[in-house]
Amino acid sequence: MPLLPSPRMALMPPIFRTRGLATSAQLPKSSRGPTGIVLLNMGGPSSIPEVHDFLYRLFADGDLIPLGRYQEPLARFIAWRRTPRIEHHYEEIGGGSPIRRWSEYQAKEMCKRLDSLSPETAPHKGYVAFRYAKPLTEETLNQMKEDGIKRAIAFTQYPQYSCSTTGSSLNELWKVTRRMDSDSQIQWSVIDRWPTHSGLVKTFAQLIKDKLKEYDESVRKSVILLFSAHSLPMSVVNRGDPYPAEVAATVHSVMSELKFKYQYRLVWQSQVGPSAWLGAQTSDTVKALIKKGQTNIILVPIAFTSDHIETLHELDLEIIKEANLEGLKRAESLNGHPMFIDTLADVVINHLKEGAVASDQYPMQCPMCTKEVCSNSRQFFLNQ
Amino acid sequence: MPLLPSPRMALMPPIFRTRGLATSAQLPKSSRGPTGIVLLNMGGPSSIPEVHDFLYRLFADGDLIPLGRYQEPLARFIAWRRTPRIEHHYEEIGGGSPIRRWSEYQAKEMCKRLDSLSPETAPHKGYVAFRYAKPLTEETLNQMKEDGIKRAIAFTQYPQYSCSTTGSSLNELWKVTRRMDSDSQIQWSVIDRWPTHSGLVKTFAQLIKDKLKEYDESVRKSVILLFSAHSLPMSVVNRGDPYPAEVAATVHSVMSELKFKYQYRLVWQSQVGPSAWLGAQTSDTVKALIKKGQTNIILVPIAFTSDHIETLHELDLEIIKEANLEGLKRAESLNGHPMFIDTLADVVINHLKEGAVASDQYPMQCPMCTKEVCSNSRQFFLNQ
Repeated sequence: MPLLPSPRMALMPPIFRTRGLATSAQLPKSSRGPTGIVLLNMGGPSSIPEVHDFLYRLFADGDLIPLGRYQEPLARFIAWRRTPRIEHHYEEIGGGSPIRRWSEYQAKEMCKRLDSLSPETAPHKGYVAFRYAKPLTEETLNQMKEDGIKRAIAFTQYPQYSCSTTGSSLNELWKVTRRMDSDSQIQWSVIDRWPTHSGLVKTFAQLIKDKLKEYDESVRKSVILLFSAHSLPMSVVNRGDPYPAEVAATVHSVMSELKFKYQYRLVWQSQVGPSAWLGAQTSDTVKALIKKGQTNIILVPIAFTSDHIETLHELDLEIIKEANLEGLKRAESLNGHPMFIDTLADVVINHLKEGAVASDQYPMQCPMCTKEVCSNSRQFFLNQ
Repeated sequence: MPLLPSPRMALMPPIFRTRGLATSAQLPKSSRGPTGIVLLNMGGPSSIPEVHDFLYRLFADGDLIPLGRYQEPLARFIAWRRTPRIEHHYEEIGGGSPIRRWSEYQAKEMCKRLDSLSPETAPHKGYVAFRYAKPLTEETLNQMKEDGIKRAIAFTQYPQYSCSTTGSSLNELWKVTRRMDSDSQIQWSVIDRWPTHSGLVKTFAQLIKDKLKEYDESVRKSVILLFSAHSLPMSVVNRGDPYPAEVAATVHSVMSELKFKYQYRLVWQSQVGPSAWLGAQTSDTVKALIKKGQTNIILVPIAFTSDHIETLHELDLEIIKEANLEGLKRAESLNGHPMFIDTLADVVINHLKEGAVASDQYPMQCPMCTKEVCSNSRQFFLNQ
């Protein structure tokens, strides 16, 4: 039963040189480049020995998982306790997360497009900065300085803004920059959200249509689409985080592109720990639908742009393989889809044309957030 | 300080004949009419003596407020306990809810438009059926039978679908119809959601622009828009209710119409009781923003179409008057705005043109819902 595609690693792009992914387009003499474009994401361990440190950084990040004043020792404990199990998960998906290689591929291909679309800001040099795995922000910033970058765009790879994700990455970038670029050699601007960019929406819709083709025409109309996004603790939701509403906006736009022809729900995955998180939970929903006799369901990862443990293990193995139901499938992630690469380039082009340092929404902190770092990092980027 | 507009009741339309709001357009001989159009809504007590029964019906509705097996006696107790306080609230907003008069006005004006836009289904007769106040479904159905209606549209006045609102109204309509129209004299179709109808979105945007004009141009750009919708218990959210995502879609569309020029958040109001509800809460958010020095805020009621206690008392008196801050305002409700009346007519026209018995989404119950009534009422309407 072809529920699980053949090893994912085989689908991955060849390994590229890690950073400074410059392209060789001919540049006009008037170029204002080079322009560094840093893809921000959470990242994942590329190999098993990196799992522990990845987990430690993840649980040590109070922006992502608020554990209070004992965050650091708790993070050490949780990382130590969870490492063996999570190492096993990464073994099961081929020995590591593909997110680094996908991100480097996306950065390189996007820059190729940008060099021809916007010669006046070329050459475009793509970088990757992960929050919890290599390459970390320090490493990337080092490379950028070595490459002589003076103008850079921090481009979040979370299309929908959350303080736990994009917020955390920008806070980290601000902290590291303050230390490593204290004389502000690099001038930054920020792409902080793009939840309903038309290219993003059309690519999601295309990947869903591709998956729908795998069903017999006679049952296709009965397929339920479950858009699955990483959940948030209710403490973060209730603080006024914009993420749930922006994810819902992406879903609605994709459904609009599909003329609302299929029944759907937005559901939430990857809850950890005992506190309350936003639901309905993806796994519960799949089980409940199957119990009701629904045999055709497509899971659509709607808030991450590349494959990682949450798609390859949580959705593909823990939910889909476990259910052992032929009609339960997953739409491919955006990964290296040419429409998605075009989208990335278009988001950057729009940002360059607009000339704003960030979106009009970026200055607004969550109403109930009182964290100084969130206000300081905003000050830093808005004063560029 | 003109924070509270002069008595709202003065803004209300004159009282029309309650039901059977027929208009007198000339009909073509080929008309398939009359077409009954029933505006479904929660309703509110038009006078103080109606408050107790309204509250009892509200708390007795397990679709709205799930209280378990002791729903009925608990509803009696809660209604008895809350009546004096809520009577006082209705006294403070002029002696009753304006929702009935607005609904009857909307129905009548919408039908005028429909008679000229769709003579082939004329005459259009507008009705109102409330879930918790007069006119209740029984009364309306009686009138429809008296008027000889054979073809009717159940048109929810909650633009975003929730099992607690539209779902509850349709369950009630099914139950009453089964009893009072057991030989199916009336053929029904359903308008079950219209969260991003372009007319709805443009009317919301217009009402926000109108309110923005009240601010000096120098501060207008700093106004924060707080879109406020009635909250849901997390038990309902976690069951997979589509409402939070559909409300977010409305908000995103309105912001798109406003080019995302203003900072905004979607917040949730009217939480009752000790259990967990979806946040961030409107009142907390306003307080937190004011504490941070934000002095210009517009509250935008985004999930109700007419004024009622939640706007006139909760937003206008408990939040705005209480805060005593000139820059804290509320956008007008849709009420009798001509663009909104056009919208209502357009939603019906689209429904008639499409010829479907309901939207493609309607057949899908919440994944974790096991209530028989929800499946039975769906069966009934889908088999029309």
